[in-house]
Amino acid sequence: MQPLRLADDGWSIEILDQTALPDEVVVRRLATFEQVVEAIVTMRVRGAPLIGITAAYGACLGMMVDDSDAALQELEDALLGTRPTAVNLRAAVGRMMRAVRPLARTARVEAAYREAAAIADEERRACRAIGDYGLGLVKAARDRRGDGRPVQILTHCNAGWLATLEYGTALAPVYRAFEEGIDVHVWVDETRPRSQGWLTAWELAARGVPHTAIADTASGFLFQNGEVDLVLVGTDRVTRRGDVCNKIGTYLVALAAREARVPFYVGAPSSSIDWSMSDGSQVPIEERSSEEVTHVRGRRMAPLGTGARNPAFDVTPARLVSGLITERGICAASEHGLLGLFGDART
Amino acid sequence: MQPLRLADDGWSIEILDQTALPDEVVVRRLATFEQVVEAIVTMRVRGAPLIGITAAYGACLGMMVDDSDAALQELEDALLGTRPTAVNLRAAVGRMMRAVRPLARTARVEAAYREAAAIADEERRACRAIGDYGLGLVKAARDRRGDGRPVQILTHCNAGWLATLEYGTALAPVYRAFEEGIDVHVWVDETRPRSQGWLTAWELAARGVPHTAIADTASGFLFQNGEVDLVLVGTDRVTRRGDVCNKIGTYLVALAAREARVPFYVGAPSSSIDWSMSDGSQVPIEERSSEEVTHVRGRRMAPLGTGARNPAFDVTPARLVSGLITERGICAASEHGLLGLFGDART
Repeated sequence: MQPLRLADDGWSIEILDQTALPDEVVVRRLATFEQVVEAIVTMRVRGAPLIGITAAYGACLGMMVDDSDAALQELEDALLGTRPTAVNLRAAVGRMMRAVRPLARTARVEAAYREAAAIADEERRACRAIGDYGLGLVKAARDRRGDGRPVQILTHCNAGWLATLEYGTALAPVYRAFEEGIDVHVWVDETRPRSQGWLTAWELAARGVPHTAIADTASGFLFQNGEVDLVLVGTDRVTRRGDVCNKIGTYLVALAAREARVPFYVGAPSSSIDWSMSDGSQVPIEERSSEEVTHVRGRRMAPLGTGARNPAFDVTPARLVSGLITERGICAASEHGLLGLFGDART
Repeated sequence: MQPLRLADDGWSIEILDQTALPDEVVVRRLATFEQVVEAIVTMRVRGAPLIGITAAYGACLGMMVDDSDAALQELEDALLGTRPTAVNLRAAVGRMMRAVRPLARTARVEAAYREAAAIADEERRACRAIGDYGLGLVKAARDRRGDGRPVQILTHCNAGWLATLEYGTALAPVYRAFEEGIDVHVWVDETRPRSQGWLTAWELAARGVPHTAIADTASGFLFQNGEVDLVLVGTDRVTRRGDVCNKIGTYLVALAAREARVPFYVGAPSSSIDWSMSDGSQVPIEERSSEEVTHVRGRRMAPLGTGARNPAFDVTPARLVSGLITERGICAASEHGLLGLFGDART
């Protein structure tokens, strides 16, 4: 099972509709650019790396209809307008455009599919590498515990294979540890308002990884009581100085982890690094519909007349981050740390 | 509208069923001890002070059936077993028993109703006083803002009139400020898993107080962005040294408030002080059904096979608390502070 694949026709894509999970497994075929845009906006596909990959294939579908320069510009603008926060989206769309713009129109579509596949492959490989490097953190947490009981890992939102392909970012070290036979147990934050924690629970269950859900309000209690050994989260954008933008609520987890001296690591493929941004206050924070807060599955929970504010992301300052797990290794959440691994790749 | 009143028959009680809110206003008559126990356990009545008052009337109903010494002991044990965390419950039940045990059986029921009414009156007066003292904090926050815009107050769970009678504890200063014509705006944490934030929104709306709901994950973002001037929460138990046990998630709010240097005050009537307990680690934390996390209004949200942990309270250490607002004034969250106001009353 994969969150996205190229369909057997070789040009449309099939996605696992994440708005139907965990109740139903619905595979949806996206055959038009407009369907891709809708799927990203409504979060049928979600997770920073997967958004980037989906957008790349969306560009392909758009070019099949019109591969003119003017059309390319329209596709780019429309894709960038779907979700403002994840930099992977911008990186993937920019890369697609750079790959096809210099080409003759007759060569564009084929090159676009090639580039989209390359982006997907690179994300897949980055996740595997993050899993390998992060495995050491799980082993270290196990050794710190020293009592032979399962390593207690807390995660927020979903940064597993549903958010990427195969392993995920935050969850890649969990899956690798599980494969290695290390006893792990994952505390899964519900992650209101969209409750992506249920996606995390679903994908952990699908692979047999022990886990327990908690309300977002309960993480502090677990930290205070020594019930968390390690925090692993994903990211939608890491700034040059190492500030980490991620799903709303990540900052509160980071504060509680710091207070309890529990390591807080971020699975951050290089596609999530934004070299153009120095600090987190510059990250555009998407504000989504208030109904995501006031309603649950279409049913109004809030009293009539009560409105809601719904920022979808927050920024955890670098000083609260123990380190970034990238496909090239683990580094400090700082410009120095990032340059040490990616000095050559900085764009 | 009141969350609890003595019925016109003079012996049964009528409660506003808080499990039906905010969808429906259901007034439910409780005419037996067993109905009172059920109402407390299922949270038809909730909020530390109101639980105490309800339990007091529950004792009255029980004594109407049997006022023997053996029966008193059974009533006491059953009431104390309903909810372990709020000390108000224990204080109210203990007080009822002390009032009736020395009396002849023929005098017990009447004395019990008198004592229950006295407890209710004292809680009502304590709330008013907390409102008066807390008003100064709201004015100070307004003056710190200095821009004439509404004072931004964040609250967690429900510690308004639904949780007490009339004014509430945390919300008493808000209502007093509103009455005084001070512009206030309340950020209402949803407070999963029971989502008492909807109760807070409902009671604020009923009195016309401007407010906006947020998911519990979003408070950190608001603090980081300077959108909160003051935090006001209630408490289920304050230890002798000033640690504050309150609804799960309060600790995370306190961490974010401290980080943003936003004052964090607790509305704490003296009925919530537990002199027998020195620090918060001793407070018994109620763990409730995992279904409160995995289900919403009877509908399963979590994947099948995913369990949940559901601690209902956490402890905010005194060092994160700016002060306690009591019916005798505001004091530091410390043994020294509490003794300064309640040295005579210490039990």
